Amino acid sequence: MVVVMQPQATQQHIAAVDDRLTAEGFRTQVIYGEKRTVVAAVGDRRVMETLGLEALPGVEKVVPIMKPFKLASREVKEENTVIRVKGASVGGSELAVIAGPCAVESREQLLAAAWAVRAAGAKFLRGGAFKPRTSPYSFQGMEEQGLKLLAEASELTGLVTVSEVIDEESLAMALDYIDILQIGARNMQNFRLLKAAGKSGKPILLKRGLSATVEEWLMAAEYIMSEGNQQVILCERGIRTFETYTRNTLDLSAVPLVMGLSHLPVVVDPSHATGKRDLVLPMAMAAVAAGAGGLLVEMHPEPARALCDGQQSLSPREFAQLMTKLKPVAKAVGKSLWGVGA
Amino acid sequence: MVVVMQPQATQQHIAAVDDRLTAEGFRTQVIYGEKRTVVAAVGDRRVMETLGLEALPGVEKVVPIMKPFKLASREVKEENTVIRVKGASVGGSELAVIAGPCAVESREQLLAAAWAVRAAGAKFLRGGAFKPRTSPYSFQGMEEQGLKLLAEASELTGLVTVSEVIDEESLAMALDYIDILQIGARNMQNFRLLKAAGKSGKPILLKRGLSATVEEWLMAAEYIMSEGNQQVILCERGIRTFETYTRNTLDLSAVPLVMGLSHLPVVVDPSHATGKRDLVLPMAMAAVAAGAGGLLVEMHPEPARALCDGQQSLSPREFAQLMTKLKPVAKAVGKSLWGVGA
Amino acid sequence: MVVVMQPQATQQHIAAVDDRLTAEGFRTQVIYGEKRTVVAAVGDRRVMETLGLEALPGVEKVVPIMKPFKLASREVKEENTVIRVKGASVGGSELAVIAGPCAVESREQLLAAAWAVRAAGAKFLRGGAFKPRTSPYSFQGMEEQGLKLLAEASELTGLVTVSEVIDEESLAMALDYIDILQIGARNMQNFRLLKAAGKSGKPILLKRGLSATVEEWLMAAEYIMSEGNQQVILCERGIRTFETYTRNTLDLSAVPLVMGLSHLPVVVDPSHATGKRDLVLPMAMAAVAAGAGGLLVEMHPEPARALCDGQQSLSPREFAQLMTKLKPVAKAVGKSLWGVGA
Amino acid sequence: MVVVMQPQATQQHIAAVDDRLTAEGFRTQVIYGEKRTVVAAVGDRRVMETLGLEALPGVEKVVPIMKPFKLASREVKEENTVIRVKGASVGGSELAVIAGPCAVESREQLLAAAWAVRAAGAKFLRGGAFKPRTSPYSFQGMEEQGLKLLAEASELTGLVTVSEVIDEESLAMALDYIDILQIGARNMQNFRLLKAAGKSGKPILLKRGLSATVEEWLMAAEYIMSEGNQQVILCERGIRTFETYTRNTLDLSAVPLVMGLSHLPVVVDPSHATGKRDLVLPMAMAAVAAGAGGLLVEMHPEPARALCDGQQSLSPREFAQLMTKLKPVAKAVGKSLWGVGA
Repeated sequence: MVVVMQPQATQQHIAAVDDRLTAEGFRTQVIYGEKRTVVAAVGDRRVMETLGLEALPGVEKVVPIMKPFKLASREVKEENTVIRVKGASVGGSELAVIAGPCAVESREQLLAAAWAVRAAGAKFLRGGAFKPRTSPYSFQGMEEQGLKLLAEASELTGLVTVSEVIDEESLAMALDYIDILQIGARNMQNFRLLKAAGKSGKPILLKRGLSATVEEWLMAAEYIMSEGNQQVILCERGIRTFETYTRNTLDLSAVPLVMGLSHLPVVVDPSHATGKRDLVLPMAMAAVAAGAGGLLVEMHPEPARALCDGQQSLSPREFAQLMTKLKPVAKAVGKSLWGVGA
Repeated sequence: MVVVMQPQATQQHIAAVDDRLTAEGFRTQVIYGEKRTVVAAVGDRRVMETLGLEALPGVEKVVPIMKPFKLASREVKEENTVIRVKGASVGGSELAVIAGPCAVESREQLLAAAWAVRAAGAKFLRGGAFKPRTSPYSFQGMEEQGLKLLAEASELTGLVTVSEVIDEESLAMALDYIDILQIGARNMQNFRLLKAAGKSGKPILLKRGLSATVEEWLMAAEYIMSEGNQQVILCERGIRTFETYTRNTLDLSAVPLVMGLSHLPVVVDPSHATGKRDLVLPMAMAAVAAGAGGLLVEMHPEPARALCDGQQSLSPREFAQLMTKLKPVAKAVGKSLWGVGA
Repeated sequence: MVVVMQPQATQQHIAAVDDRLTAEGFRTQVIYGEKRTVVAAVGDRRVMETLGLEALPGVEKVVPIMKPFKLASREVKEENTVIRVKGASVGGSELAVIAGPCAVESREQLLAAAWAVRAAGAKFLRGGAFKPRTSPYSFQGMEEQGLKLLAEASELTGLVTVSEVIDEESLAMALDYIDILQIGARNMQNFRLLKAAGKSGKPILLKRGLSATVEEWLMAAEYIMSEGNQQVILCERGIRTFETYTRNTLDLSAVPLVMGLSHLPVVVDPSHATGKRDLVLPMAMAAVAAGAGGLLVEMHPEPARALCDGQQSLSPREFAQLMTKLKPVAKAVGKSLWGVGA
Repeated sequence: MVVVMQPQATQQHIAAVDDRLTAEGFRTQVIYGEKRTVVAAVGDRRVMETLGLEALPGVEKVVPIMKPFKLASREVKEENTVIRVKGASVGGSELAVIAGPCAVESREQLLAAAWAVRAAGAKFLRGGAFKPRTSPYSFQGMEEQGLKLLAEASELTGLVTVSEVIDEESLAMALDYIDILQIGARNMQNFRLLKAAGKSGKPILLKRGLSATVEEWLMAAEYIMSEGNQQVILCERGIRTFETYTRNTLDLSAVPLVMGLSHLPVVVDPSHATGKRDLVLPMAMAAVAAGAGGLLVEMHPEPARALCDGQQSLSPREFAQLMTKLKPVAKAVGKSLWGVGA
């Protein structure tokens, strides 16, 4: 990092900073400019962040140079991480399409959705059993009953299941039923949950927080990985900006950016990002063209009757069209799309 | 609300919307314009949000008119809510100043802080025992041992304690030791935690999420209140914007705004909002002038040795000066400041 | 629009609102709810915005329903606007690729760039002669001399030229030399300039402001169109958000969104949006997949020697590769790419 | 600055960076870490920004250390700049209160406003003659006629006038009539206008752009100052964030922050920032408590009839109350308020 000293910093101030850094094993260089002195140091940023240098007298600011994440970094592991579940994979040459309803509402609804997902050529079924809702008066999900229905749907259709867990309790419950555990945007920095996910041994789909920087997002993945679980799938789902025409602003640049910084697979959720059915297809196409390893798409047998997010859910027919249209784009970026009519 | 139909919406589309609304007990009016038709309806927004109208054919958008929160609303309860704990109060005519270290680090550090808080004339002691940290490699807090030290400090000094809980487990643990439970910005939409807080029966200090709108913040309070706990203190602590010179952007307008929308007390945390020691005093003055009911200020016996947030922590002497300077501003807005030398 | 009255609004307050609206020719409906009364009105929003209803006693807020733009709206003109210049077109079935250096630096540099643009199969040459720079100490552009070089390059290569104008003076100067006038992000709400552009009779490439909503962007187009110039090309170039890893956040959802709201062509500038050379290719691919009608790409004969934006400029070889890779994506969305090797 | 090299950067890459920097007179240090090499350099940032180092092979990023502004910096001029006009001053011990209507609408309206401003004890009259409006269909201002009325009002009341100029033409026109020229938020980076303002010799009130960082804002002041005009007043008027309850988000932390970075006076506009009459008083109080040197407040003889911004304009009586309430807060921060009843 670089420690920038205030113009009025004294020799003692500079020495104090230098000493604390060298004491911690940093290689330092003091550079005297006309106006200011800076202390440059190279070493482990994770240690640096525990030193509280900014609180030392004479220090103006500390500018970090190295990245704070390690296990998630491509500098540590060059080749892409590919996550394999029940013969499907995320992060490889095959595009991973995860589709299904916002919430599991009934056996009939979920099975109809599952068969439609499979018929369209996707391999992953999503469905929420625990719904974190902004209003305490909204539908909160079927909880364990929903998980059981997902497990049944998986058994009948062979689809890999993805479902959100919202705390240690729901995570423990989901272990017996679900293939890939999702951690939602609101819980991206629920560190207890991240650690539990790290211990779960299950692949984790980690959504980017609504206002999380790319660095914070990768640090959240680092939490999971630091507990020994390397199977993390990153999901871009839109960030909060001043623009309100769309539900959020899909930050697609984050896809190639994160793929450069990290070896973890990145998928995109155009449904939550846009909140508008009409925008799901074009943004799904764009996500694949940007290099995303997969998609998370909301599909409901009857969107107009959905208990949540109906306005952004595709019908089975619209979803099948999406899969067909995706094919040439996937091909253009060297990816295959299983089961979609050649 | 107002349901705006698409230009090409048919009579059937309009009738379908009207029917669903009237079936739910809304009073509706269909208004035919040259270009468009809108269906205006008055009724319970909480019901409205469960109808999924936006997913109906022919609907362009749904514009809510009423506010989504109820228990937290001043329309439901006109007079200010005043929360009383051990002879101290928040939301009344007395300014509530909550001060102490970011994290409880040791008995010696906490007691030194507590006596300094008391000596300066504040009545509330803050200290973190469970630290949600962005990096898994940073200090995570003393947990239960920290809670015990806070209880001891309270017994010795008579100060009211405020400490953050990060999940149901830490909340359960804190019940025996802490007077006011804090829910941090990252957990503002951790709905399980909000419900547990609602059942706890303790006063809750609810920090605004980093990217939470005022409406979402009040909905989070609504979660707590809907479980029967009316003792909620709202804390503005800065929102995330494009400006990076300060740690966050303190949204002081939210203070009078929320005090107009809600009867709950609002306090301000200038330390986390700015992240810079030099800005804490002016923003504390500004918060009081804006009408805030209190402050949350980080103070450490030795900021340069703090295990976290040293750069934004005041020393005991700086804190005492802050209290003295606050007095005339508090007086200017008709508030008193206990124990501060007349 | 809907005028929401305060709970304590009187009959006189409501009548006053109703009267002012009906006096202006709005069709109104007063709807009495339990808690509140709302006055719904259908009519010209442009008139509505001049009424200052929010300042009337008893009014809580005014919620607009209709869109504020008219000439730019697809409701007024259904078919896409296609802009034709010297045998090239923007907004049609052919992808419009505009490439060239950030700034015109010399005859040699510009001609080298122009031939490379042409060789790669693009039809439009961009180059800045007037550079709005954040620092008064940075290179400010070659001004008229730069415009002359662009005209010469166009004559030699047959490319259509695009160059930024920053005020009425530079606009007047550019009329004789440039085919398409660009209005930059910082000038998107320079209304004098917008009006002058409207009178110029030249096609205008209007960049979205750094923090402009889609609605404000279309209102800026409306300014140009209201002066009689219908040839407006909208250019998404990234918005300002909290994320700083990229220079801006490319809001690709705005492409299909705006194409739904307006008949005007939309192009995307991945170079300024990302500020990183490595992200230009994937985001260009994504933009085309999202349905963009064209691209604005920075290319410099020697990026390492560029006087501005070298870090985001492609080399001629990288640009040629981009064109080749774009082809299958363009094909996938039904667009052709002129001159690119089959 | 610090140039961070990519992990795979070669010795030649490092040498090339070092050479270019030393050739430009920078004092450099190459620091070899385990993973990376960084080249630290101290020198003139304004030169640094012209080097295009980020485009050099092997360079990952350039991290600036020094501030980009110079003339505006407190490091260059320690004592506060105080601007004196007609016996009034901005930036001194007296609070500068600038009040008046959004737009000059008529002689009667402006004179009524002017006398009310004076009666309440303020010394500065504001009024818009050139209105940059988002919609081309809104009232655009009285232009020169408005300027003449402002000059007349000033002559009759002795008030110092402040009015916005939107381009070089309106600036030239205003020179004969107006005491302090305002550059609005939308024009903060209209560099031609900034330069013209620098040449005007008049005090300039420079509003912060809607999405301008503090650094960009000070760079805009630098533009004006670099033309020889040191009389710049900075005006914080709210930034654009995700929060839509208020028109903008007033960034009050910017007041003490900028006062630390720069010697220029800082005033605050609570009217535009909040867009709500009820929030003007508390935010004006807060601004003064935060240390602002003055206020810009919208006041209209009859807010309900205002042609613009009526919803955020105070009535003369509300404004007089504001002045009275401000007094003790001004006193608390060591400022005086002229003419307000002791």
